[in-house]
Order: sequence, then structure tokens, then C-alpha cells
Amino acid sequence: MPEADDAQQERILAAIDVGTNSIHMVIVLVQPRLASFTIIAREKQMVRLGEYCLKTGWLKPEAMARALDALRHCKAFAEGLGAQEIIAVATSAVREAPNGPEFLQQIQRVVGLRVDLISGEEEARRIYLGVLSAVELDNRSHVVIDIGGGSTELILGDGHEPRFLTSIKAGAVRLSEQFVTSDPISTRDYNCLQNQVRNLLEPAIDALHSQGSFERLVGTSGTIMTLAEMDARQTGNVPTSLQGYTLTLASLEQLLAQLRPLDLEARRRLPGVSERRADIIVAGAAILLEAMKLLKVESLVVCEAALREGLIVDWMLAHGLIADRLRYQGSVRERSVLHLADKFHLDYAHAEQVSRLALSLFDQTRGALHHWSGADRELLWAAAMLHNCGHFINHSAHHKHSYYLIRHGGMLGFTEEEIEVIANLARYHRKSAPRRKHLPFQQLSKEHKRLVRQLSIFLRLASALDRRHKGAVQAVRCQVRPDQVELHLQPHDPADPCDLELWNAEYKKAEFEQEFGRVLTISLEPAIRDAFPLLAVPAGDSRPEAGLGERTPAAGSRR
Amino acid sequence: MPEADDAQQERILAAIDVGTNSIHMVIVLVQPRLASFTIIAREKQMVRLGEYCLKTGWLKPEAMARALDALRHCKAFAEGLGAQEIIAVATSAVREAPNGPEFLQQIQRVVGLRVDLISGEEEARRIYLGVLSAVELDNRSHVVIDIGGGSTELILGDGHEPRFLTSIKAGAVRLSEQFVTSDPISTRDYNCLQNQVRNLLEPAIDALHSQGSFERLVGTSGTIMTLAEMDARQTGNVPTSLQGYTLTLASLEQLLAQLRPLDLEARRRLPGVSERRADIIVAGAAILLEAMKLLKVESLVVCEAALREGLIVDWMLAHGLIADRLRYQGSVRERSVLHLADKFHLDYAHAEQVSRLALSLFDQTRGALHHWSGADRELLWAAAMLHNCGHFINHSAHHKHSYYLIRHGGMLGFTEEEIEVIANLARYHRKSAPRRKHLPFQQLSKEHKRLVRQLSIFLRLASALDRRHKGAVQAVRCQVRPDQVELHLQPHDPADPCDLELWNAEYKKAEFEQEFGRVLTISLEPAIRDAFPLLAVPAGDSRPEAGLGERTPAAGSRR
Repeated sequence: MPEADDAQQERILAAIDVGTNSIHMVIVLVQPRLASFTIIAREKQMVRLGEYCLKTGWLKPEAMARALDALRHCKAFAEGLGAQEIIAVATSAVREAPNGPEFLQQIQRVVGLRVDLISGEEEARRIYLGVLSAVELDNRSHVVIDIGGGSTELILGDGHEPRFLTSIKAGAVRLSEQFVTSDPISTRDYNCLQNQVRNLLEPAIDALHSQGSFERLVGTSGTIMTLAEMDARQTGNVPTSLQGYTLTLASLEQLLAQLRPLDLEARRRLPGVSERRADIIVAGAAILLEAMKLLKVESLVVCEAALREGLIVDWMLAHGLIADRLRYQGSVRERSVLHLADKFHLDYAHAEQVSRLALSLFDQTRGALHHWSGADRELLWAAAMLHNCGHFINHSAHHKHSYYLIRHGGMLGFTEEEIEVIANLARYHRKSAPRRKHLPFQQLSKEHKRLVRQLSIFLRLASALDRRHKGAVQAVRCQVRPDQVELHLQPHDPADPCDLELWNAEYKKAEFEQEFGRVLTISLEPAIRDAFPLLAVPAGDSRPEAGLGERTPAAGSRR
Repeated sequence: MPEADDAQQERILAAIDVGTNSIHMVIVLVQPRLASFTIIAREKQMVRLGEYCLKTGWLKPEAMARALDALRHCKAFAEGLGAQEIIAVATSAVREAPNGPEFLQQIQRVVGLRVDLISGEEEARRIYLGVLSAVELDNRSHVVIDIGGGSTELILGDGHEPRFLTSIKAGAVRLSEQFVTSDPISTRDYNCLQNQVRNLLEPAIDALHSQGSFERLVGTSGTIMTLAEMDARQTGNVPTSLQGYTLTLASLEQLLAQLRPLDLEARRRLPGVSERRADIIVAGAAILLEAMKLLKVESLVVCEAALREGLIVDWMLAHGLIADRLRYQGSVRERSVLHLADKFHLDYAHAEQVSRLALSLFDQTRGALHHWSGADRELLWAAAMLHNCGHFINHSAHHKHSYYLIRHGGMLGFTEEEIEVIANLARYHRKSAPRRKHLPFQQLSKEHKRLVRQLSIFLRLASALDRRHKGAVQAVRCQVRPDQVELHLQPHDPADPCDLELWNAEYKKAEFEQEFGRVLTISLEPAIRDAFPLLAVPAGDSRPEAGLGERTPAAGSRR
């Protein structure tokens, strides 16, 4: 995380998208004073990572080897250009393969590059951010479509928060593998392909339509760029950039009519079609055609910016370095957490009180008991807000239901690993402490296991300290001594002995003492408000407590 | 299931409650013409099944052996008295122990008695039914409290559907094991016990209060009966029956003050306290005292009928043999399913259409392709209604989320095993067919595996036949031939080719053909409405389709 005093300095960043068909990188110069960025270099390698073993669905060793090579090259290239940070995400191919997470660990080990797995919806959100960096939607509704190798993303938005976003498991590589068994493609194969595409797209596009109308379709990524390029070349009117190029439904139908009777060799020779695009362009075009028909549009406008640019925008938002017109996108994590809180009918006042207390414990023990970052603090905030959401399913074992709902609830703004940490933290807000035999805990990295073990202790204490769900403990002062930690509670009502809170917190001492190797004492303190004015937060403040010198999640405390 | 023509015959039934402290049985004469039952015999053995291994939480071998003996005896006794059916359920002790399900299998194997596991909420519901059979609540709100060995049930109701019910893991045996380490109980132990009881009861009773006020508290089961009996004997005014006996808070406090300084031997000698009650009566009394304080009542009225009687009432409701004033309780399963459908925002028209088609397939192939019962049909109905509820969590992998929500959503009126079957059926409404490696499927009994495998095929087909969620297929006619099964679809709109439905159903053929060993053909048929008038259900009918001669779940098609 950059220090505050160099926040305004220019810096070079790289963003890598480990896709199903290709690995893409952009290297950019971030210019905080302009609140924007400039692309310095692009790099693309079509490694076809999504060439699964058709039987097991696993990533194949040779595909993984190609990806490792490409990533090694990207990293060296980015470092050669002076990139201070590399943001890398993996999408559909890694998401769907059972050995995907293991492969990401291998990348970390072999290449020394951290690649975060993101969900389809999160991918859609970042594509949208990328488009916003290049297209002014001007408060008018647009649909963005991104056809990748493994999935297709659809977003409905007018430049503000997207009204609808989804990721559909229809990609050019994936569908080619499943349906294109003939070359040139037979009518039977094509019909199957077309049916399946419609089948996959229709429910999503129905749902999109139900969210409102739109004026224009924006298309991004390889398949669409290739089709636009082919169209441009055939009309003899080749623009220097495809940005803003209009591809009509009629042209697309013509292109497809032209592609279908050709075999692979012939398709390769078409102007604008690359080697590693020729085998999947028919499936890609079929996806786009069905999507345009279902969306009932006559044309689309090409946008060259997509996921990679979105990664940069997302990073800038998280660091508070973004243009005004995108600023409201910054608090996506906070909004996403609050959205789930709402959906699962949480007791909001209790959730806020618990997160306030948990963050206060985190802040006051930081440095002395732990060294977790502001980004980790944000995960604790999210877990504290959502820890009780499992009640929506059932009171009994609700901590386990909280895990499930957070894990699968489709939160935006977080990587899959971060979501896993939040879900685990919520899981351990009561009952058993983390144990090796618990599967979701077992699957965390060693570092994240420690993170969950330590931060869940703050959450357990905080939850105990609001046992009656009435904000009885106004603040907690934490005194860390060499062998001992003292918690001094300030009751909201000086006459309230907070028996139930004290009694409950007592039960959480053992885990604290074991983890931090110090004796914990918990007692009431009559007046600490004056000494720690920051901790006495007025009830009803909807923002997580800033604590002692740490920025709030909304203001961007991410790494 | 009784045939319709002997529905009015009297019969003898036994109901057994395998509890944490004791195994209770009632044997009753069911008198359909009076819409009631008469108790012929009672049997009670305090086997203390909930004497867990404190380390592992497993049921101990010696406790299981005692329970097996008791059940063998109960069965012989019931059969000796001419019981035609024995309804047996297991509660908290079996629910909480990891080896509980295995123990139930052992009972089946060794004793030849089927014991169903029920959830805490289902237990509460049946206790309520038992109370209703003995107390006229007269449309006035009552709270029922049942303190058992492993859990305490609380119900708020006025004789109609309960407004609130819950099961709390506070029981006389369980808390004695955890907190009573001294004899006589030390002040420290008692304070811990009291704190823990308050801790467990308070959130539940807060929730109960939020559902409305009530006029009277009704208490059931051993702990409360024992305390009432002690009180009655001390006042010298011993009634012949405790039914309707009033125990005041003041008396209870006196009793507890009297019990606390006594050691086990002395408590045993108290009039009204049995051998196997003396060691847990202090914890039991503490639960009742805290509950009465939190409920803010000065007295309770004893009701002798509880879970066992509730099992009989539930059976009679399911068989349509019940008094008018309880009749609205009959459709608890249906209401419970519809409640979940509502909570998880289901597309109701689609759910109804899919269940209509699935039941139609079930009915038309019954006898020829399968021999599942009306009770099994009801599980298919529930699964068909709820198959899409996982969408509430996330579109992606929603069939797995459906499993989770159904499994943990606290449905009433079903045993735990039945809920597991419904959840599994919903799990397999799309994507992979049941596989041995899927854990929830793996854990089903052999018979239930076959049930899920076969009925999920009907559900998959039905779901495919409403692919567009618009009721395009009005009815399906099923022709079963020796080597072949033909499905003839009648479109709602004769001009609709139902392409997407046909295409989708094609995908489900393989599993059908493999399971039933016959070729499946699916095609459109212009007019079958006239031939099968029952199948043409008007849209918007909220009841599951009765199909061909089968009663609806609401009317009681349970075993």
C-alpha cells in the first residue's frame, strides 16, 4: 500500500488477465494528478489455457506449461519497463478447473507472481470499469458484452453502478470444444451449437431486459475485435483503431455465412483472423449473433478497453486516485457487503456495533499483537458486518450458514480468496475455533489460516461484547502489556453492569490467550470516552469505525 | 398407507419418543369416527441415551445398549397390545451425536423398528400438536414450554398455526453434564449454570416476545411434571392427575431453594423425585426458573400430553382422521414448502408448472416403471416446488445452493431423512446425475439412493419441459411400452413448436434410458386435452396436481 505522501506520484503498473484463450497484459503509467492512466505497452499470448482434459475438466500439463512461460515473460517485460506492481487475475479457465487453485499456487512458486482468482460477476464488474475508462456513457443506459474463451459477461449500466451484471458459461473456446466436431462445421453441429448458445444466453438476457431498456450495445475483447477487424477489412475501410467501430447485425450475419463453409485452413487465411483465433471464431461469432438477436439490437460499438483496463481502474479506485466521474464506483466492497446484509435481513445495528468493536480491537492491538494490513482489516470489517447472516437460513448452526451465504453469495469487489477469508472469519464468530479438520479452513493458505485464527478472535470478542444486541458496550480500551492484555469496557449506560457481555467475553478468553500468548483480563471501566474520543461513535453511523489512524474501507485501504 | 375403505376403522397405534433422558411410549386406540384417540397404555424407561462421551460427543455403547433393550421391550409390548403401526422418532441426543444416524440404522437392524430423526423445530411442532389434543387454547395465545434432557422447546400459538416455535440446546441432562461438577451443587457451579441457561434462552425468548403477547404458559414433560408433583405433595394436595395443575413462580423458587443444598442421595429421598430424575432436577428447575422469569409469568399450567401424543395427532392429520378444530394443521408440509418458496423469492408459476409435470410423469409411469408410494410422491412434489430456490443465493451452481437451503432451511412436517431426500432431488434437477462421490448422495440409504436417482429423472425432464418458464407445455402424455417410453407433449399454444423445451428434454434422455432400461422418445402431440382432462390444469391453481387417482399432499398421502 502506498504511503500517503507519495500518493500523488506517478507510477508504472501492469495488469494481467489470465484468460481461457489468452494471457493479456497492459502496462500503464498511472497519473494521479490527472486522475487517469496512459497505456505504455500491451502484450498478448494465446496460450489456450482452457484446453481442458475433456474427461476430467482439469487444466492440462502442456497448457499450464505454456501459461507459466507466458507469465514469466510478462513479469520480466513489466519489470523491465519499471512496473512497481503487477495486478493479475485469473478467470473462467482457472475458475472451472478442479486443479485451478493449485495451478495458481504453482505460478506463485515458479514465477513469483501472485494471481487472484475472481468470480464471473467480479470479472463483469471490472470489465465494466475498463469500458468506463474508455467510453463516456453519459448517463444513458448501455449494455456491455464481453465474449471470452470460457465465459461471456453482460453488464447493464449508465456509467454509475451497474444495474445488472452476469457471467454466462458460454465462451468461444469452451463451446468449440463441446460442439465443433466437424471441419468445416456441419449443419448438425452448428444447430447444436446455436441451440446451446441460445439456451445459455436466454435466461440471462431475459433477466437483463427485466432491469430496464438500453440505448446501445458495447462489445469488447478478442472475438468481437476480430469480427470487427474482418468486417473493416472487407469494406476496405480499415480504421487505425477499432475503438468506436460499429459492427451491424447484418454484417455479422454475412461474416458468419462466409465463415461456416470454410475449413480451418481457409479461415486462417481470412484477413484479420489470427492463427489462434481461426479455430474458435465460428463459435465466437455464433455467441455474438444470438446475443444480438436476443438483445434485439441492430449493431454494436467496439470498445478496446476491457478487463485489463478495469483492473487498473479498480486499483486506482481502491487507492483513491480516480477521476470524479468514477468516484462513486469506489465503495463497491462496502456496497456489496451492505447489499448482502440487506438481502439476508441482518440486524443492522448489531452488525455495526460488532464491526466497530472488532475494528477497535484490531487497531489497538496492531503492532503489539499483530501486523495485519489495512486490506486485512477490511476483510474483518466485512466479516463482522455479515457474521450473523446465516440466521436467515436457520438459527441452528447459523455460523456455518453464514459461511455458506458469504462464500456463495456473489460479493463484488473481492477476489475469491478474500471472499473465502471473510466467510471463514464469519464461520468462527462463535462455537468452535478454527480446526484443521474443518474443510473450508483446511483449504486456506498457511498465511490466511493465521489471519483467520487471529482476526476471528477479535470478532468473537466483539460479538460477545454485544451479546444483548443493544450496544451496551460503548467502547473498549485495550492495554497491551508484555504478558497481559487488559480490556476495559465502557458501558453505554453507566448503571448497566453488562453482566451478560462480560460473562460471554470470558468464554472467549482461552482462544485469545492461546493465540497471543498473553493473559486476557476483561473488566468494566467507568469513563474512557474522554481519553479516546474516536472510539465513542454515535449510534447509527453507517460507516465502519475508522479507529486509530486507519482509513475506512470505502476510502480505499486495499493493498 | 391405509386403503380408503378401511379409513374409518378403529386401530391401535404406538408412538415412541427416543429422548435424551428417557424412552417414552404411548399406545392408543385411534377412533376415526370420533376423530380422536384414547390412550391404552404408557411406557417409560429412563435410559439416559444422552450420556455422551464428553470428549467426542458420541453416544456411548452402554447407553445405546440400554436404549436397544428398551426399544425391544417397547416393540414387544406394543405388538402384544395389537398395535398395527409404531411411529418412532428420535430427538436431541441422536440429533447431536455424530454416530446418531448409525445408531438409528442399528435399531432398524437389531430391533426391526424404524426410528425417524426429527429436527428441533419439528419436535416443537409435534409437541404443540400433542398439547392441542389435550388443552383447548380457545383462540387465545399460549406459550408452551417443554424441557427435555437435551433441548427445550418453546412454542407460541393460539390453537391455530404456531406463530413462533424454536428448539434451544438447553436440556436437563446436557446442562447437568456440563455444569454440575459438585454435589450438592456449589454456588459457583450454580451461577455458571444459571448464566448459561439465561444465555441460551434469552435470544429465543426475545424473539418470541417480538411475535406477540400471550395469556398463559403451558408446561410439558418430565422435568416440569416432576416439579409439579413435588409441589403438589408438599402442599399435601395431591391431585390424581397433574393435567391442569398450576405451578407458581414462587413455588418453583422455593423448590429450587430446597433442592440446591441437598446432595444426590437427599434429593432422591424427596417425595415425587425418581431415581433417574434426582441427578438432573436442579438443572431442569434452573431452566424452568429462568424461562419463567424471561417470559415474565407468575405461573404455568401443566399439560400431560406432549411429543408422543403429538406423533399420534400428526399421523391422524396425515391420514385425514382428525377433529375439525385441528384440521387446518393438516397441511403443514404444504405450508412449510410454500413458506420456503416465498422466503427464497421463487418464480412460483414455474415451480408449479414443474411440479405438475413431474407428478404427471410419476403418476403415469407408476406400476410400469416404478413402485414408489404416495409418500414418496409428496417428496417429489416438495422438491419440484423448491428446485430453483438456490437462485436466491447465486445463479451459478444454484442446484447446489438449492440443496443447502432445503437441507438447512428448517422445513416442518418432515423427518430429517425426508428433508435430505427432498434436498437431494432438488440438487439433481440439472447438471450431473447422482454420483457416488457426491457426499450428500453418498449418505443416503440404499433405498433412498434409488428413490433419488429415479425421481430426479422426472424432475429433470419436467424442468426441461418448462425451460422458458412460461408454461409452454400444457400437459404430457406418457406411453410406456416394453422397450420404449413415449412422451407426447401438448403445447399450450398450438402454434408453439416448443423447440427449446424439446431440445432441453433431449439432453435428459440418457439418464432416463439408463435408469429405466427403455428408449425414450419425446415429441409434440396436437391434442390430448380431451383424452386426459385431469392433466390440463388451469394456470394459477396453487395446489399440486392430483394426477391420476393419487391424493394431494394436503389431503394426506403420507405413509
